[in-house]
Amino acid sequence: MSEQYSGVVLGVGPERGLGAMLAKHFASKGLHVFIAGRSEDKLNLVADSIRNSGGATTVIVADATKEYDVSHLFAVIQKRGLPLHIAAYNVDSNIPSPLLETKTETFTTLWQQNCLGAFLFAKETIASMKPNQQGTLFFTGATASLRAKPPFTAFASAKAALRALAQGLAREFSPKGIHVVHAIIDGVINGDRAEQQFSEYYKSKGEEGLLKLEAIAETYWSIHCQHPSAWTHEFDLRPFKEPF
Amino acid sequence: MSEQYSGVVLGVGPERGLGAMLAKHFASKGLHVFIAGRSEDKLNLVADSIRNSGGATTVIVADATKEYDVSHLFAVIQKRGLPLHIAAYNVDSNIPSPLLETKTETFTTLWQQNCLGAFLFAKETIASMKPNQQGTLFFTGATASLRAKPPFTAFASAKAALRALAQGLAREFSPKGIHVVHAIIDGVINGDRAEQQFSEYYKSKGEEGLLKLEAIAETYWSIHCQHPSAWTHEFDLRPFKEPF
Amino acid sequence: MSEQYSGVVLGVGPERGLGAMLAKHFASKGLHVFIAGRSEDKLNLVADSIRNSGGATTVIVADATKEYDVSHLFAVIQKRGLPLHIAAYNVDSNIPSPLLETKTETFTTLWQQNCLGAFLFAKETIASMKPNQQGTLFFTGATASLRAKPPFTAFASAKAALRALAQGLAREFSPKGIHVVHAIIDGVINGDRAEQQFSEYYKSKGEEGLLKLEAIAETYWSIHCQHPSAWTHEFDLRPFKEPF
Amino acid sequence: MSEQYSGVVLGVGPERGLGAMLAKHFASKGLHVFIAGRSEDKLNLVADSIRNSGGATTVIVADATKEYDVSHLFAVIQKRGLPLHIAAYNVDSNIPSPLLETKTETFTTLWQQNCLGAFLFAKETIASMKPNQQGTLFFTGATASLRAKPPFTAFASAKAALRALAQGLAREFSPKGIHVVHAIIDGVINGDRAEQQFSEYYKSKGEEGLLKLEAIAETYWSIHCQHPSAWTHEFDLRPFKEPF
Repeated sequence: MSEQYSGVVLGVGPERGLGAMLAKHFASKGLHVFIAGRSEDKLNLVADSIRNSGGATTVIVADATKEYDVSHLFAVIQKRGLPLHIAAYNVDSNIPSPLLETKTETFTTLWQQNCLGAFLFAKETIASMKPNQQGTLFFTGATASLRAKPPFTAFASAKAALRALAQGLAREFSPKGIHVVHAIIDGVINGDRAEQQFSEYYKSKGEEGLLKLEAIAETYWSIHCQHPSAWTHEFDLRPFKEPF
Repeated sequence: MSEQYSGVVLGVGPERGLGAMLAKHFASKGLHVFIAGRSEDKLNLVADSIRNSGGATTVIVADATKEYDVSHLFAVIQKRGLPLHIAAYNVDSNIPSPLLETKTETFTTLWQQNCLGAFLFAKETIASMKPNQQGTLFFTGATASLRAKPPFTAFASAKAALRALAQGLAREFSPKGIHVVHAIIDGVINGDRAEQQFSEYYKSKGEEGLLKLEAIAETYWSIHCQHPSAWTHEFDLRPFKEPF
Repeated sequence: MSEQYSGVVLGVGPERGLGAMLAKHFASKGLHVFIAGRSEDKLNLVADSIRNSGGATTVIVADATKEYDVSHLFAVIQKRGLPLHIAAYNVDSNIPSPLLETKTETFTTLWQQNCLGAFLFAKETIASMKPNQQGTLFFTGATASLRAKPPFTAFASAKAALRALAQGLAREFSPKGIHVVHAIIDGVINGDRAEQQFSEYYKSKGEEGLLKLEAIAETYWSIHCQHPSAWTHEFDLRPFKEPF
Repeated sequence: MSEQYSGVVLGVGPERGLGAMLAKHFASKGLHVFIAGRSEDKLNLVADSIRNSGGATTVIVADATKEYDVSHLFAVIQKRGLPLHIAAYNVDSNIPSPLLETKTETFTTLWQQNCLGAFLFAKETIASMKPNQQGTLFFTGATASLRAKPPFTAFASAKAALRALAQGLAREFSPKGIHVVHAIIDGVINGDRAEQQFSEYYKSKGEEGLLKLEAIAETYWSIHCQHPSAWTHEFDLRPFKEPF
């Protein structure tokens, strides 16, 4: 299949992670996928996996919170010359902490990673998509986007900021043909990050209590495929066993 | 294709309407679809259309607010013996009215049609689906499900009641394998009802400002197809041009 | 103190209950308070208590769900000739039940008591207050107004309907000088009803975990006293120890 | 009256502004009020006004977004030795801007002023109040706290972050006796800032369409006076004529 369109995922980490899965899924649909994240090693593993399945991808090392890096990422995309059809901001960093023990740096970093990076990414994405009046821009939210519970207050504050950003973008750019979507991932993803960062909690869920990466990616894709006469701007995703 | 599964839509009216389109869509996927509504004539037109496209359907005249009718509908479904895979409660009645001019009967009827009927339908649907621990149950909500604005206060009150019902059902029955979904249709549907009931408003939207029936049905279907590890319980749908 | 204004509380039950406390509080501020509920015995006890404290009150037996009763209540108020300054709809009935065991009658009754009665009461209240372009209309909501959790789905559906009604009324009548307020009582009230209906749960809260009746009434009154340039339309109330 | 308790307002600007009015109101109740903001001139005018009315106040020049300044503010408070009973974070900065024209610096500054400063202020306030297990901590929110509309997306994102912070704080510290409150000011305040920053809009509202400073302060105070058995954690305030 000759490449005609491109996609980009910022926030690609471990191969068994949502960023990687979104990239693979988009590549499997024939898009040239630009994958970006902080670890070149991890990106290369994901790129290998995409190429082994016959997909096309370009690796760009980038820190989502650095304006220069995000600019550079889109300069690379631009140079390739394929219209950008799908973009996913998938950075999701969470550091639980009682409020009085939360350092200013932690509070700031969580906001920068979950929200400021999304702002930088959104500006570039929209500037790319606007001339064609089409494309889908995804943001990955969480349970905490809707409810702030300690010890996740700093994370919830950052995710609420992201959700409002997504909503404002949807209101501003949907009429211009850009589909802005906020996904609320309510539960624990069956991936490396949760397994390592919240291992007890992860195990307590059991396999049926975890979100499967493929299942999430399929819904993102079906939302991307929606006709503009009936666009979804926000949806939740949770395992059937998840209490909510 | 031999029929193996069934679906049901309660609230099927004009052929150019959401109930009819959901029924056609489900039938096109190979389900035997039970279609129910108050007007036998309208149901028969929809049934003809389904059959002309090679689909299988059964017509049942039913008033969603009458317990006997809803019971009877499910007795017919039961008798056919096909496992029920999808059920959509699509009754959506709206009578705008300044509050002081709203009659008790109007206030009550709107609740009965938008919410009580949904309760009756849900009980039967869940009783049918529970033994198999699978199936999807849709409720059709509206902008007013989230915001009550005059002169739509009575409608909004009924739709908010429906939304809470759907949420309680999702919490109670998702862990038992039944996928309960609340769709927020935020905008005007390109169908007979809006064209007739709110014709000025309908026209003012222009074709690009209306929700296409096929597009709505496709999203319902893709939500139905979700893997249980990542279920959506609520999503919005609006035309890209719709202010919100 | 000569009586100049009146107030009304519909949903007055046991003396140690919110309806009774609101009535006493309003009477202590010099209003002639009309108290209404289904039990004449209970109303008389509350009336005695008001009069013993030097307050003025009139008892009217009324079922909030009966249009005739609500009409009659306001006919009595009207006859007295005192401008109506405050009105509280305090009917709050809750029957927990798994959804499949919830009878149609139960589902309907909860809606009638929590929402339909509020609609009837609101119409009469607004008709009374509108000529003077002033007055406050309170609705008592609950945790469930915002979240539907089994086995409280039917209750939550009714309370969500009430909340939307209150919101629509606030939007329609605030610009006409009528202050419409929805109170979200999030927790267990230190009163007879919770003690009897949910006694285990009630005890588990401990005294510090319960809402004090006087404290609730004081906030209602301070909201009533707000200047129209800064009106509250919704607020929550919960014990400081209440998890939420 | 001998001073026994203190209060603090961070975000005191023009004398005809909410920060100044809160400070005056708290001082009129007998608290020694620490007033902080960036402009020493403005602070001195407010301090004169407080002292002329017989109140006690201390001026501290502080930039809410600077950790050192906030620390220093609380060191001054601490030194005075009066138990801190009330604290209000009133910084509210808004720069409307279409998203593609919004600079990274603007997006960041709005977050720092509306949210990061609140985090710094909250940590110090809670550390002060916690030993006494009492005190009220207010955050001033806005319409945008709940809805992100262009060209206010950056502002809305920052205010949503603040709201989530307030909610997480309420959940963490209410059980420890600290009353955390998020006020949603939905409308235009009758003060210098709106008159200068949004003068056309301000004028279009007419006097009846603006929030009066005194009225806001009175509600803050009555919420502060609530008994801990029935605390409000969030409330809205809007002029009776304000559409919402």
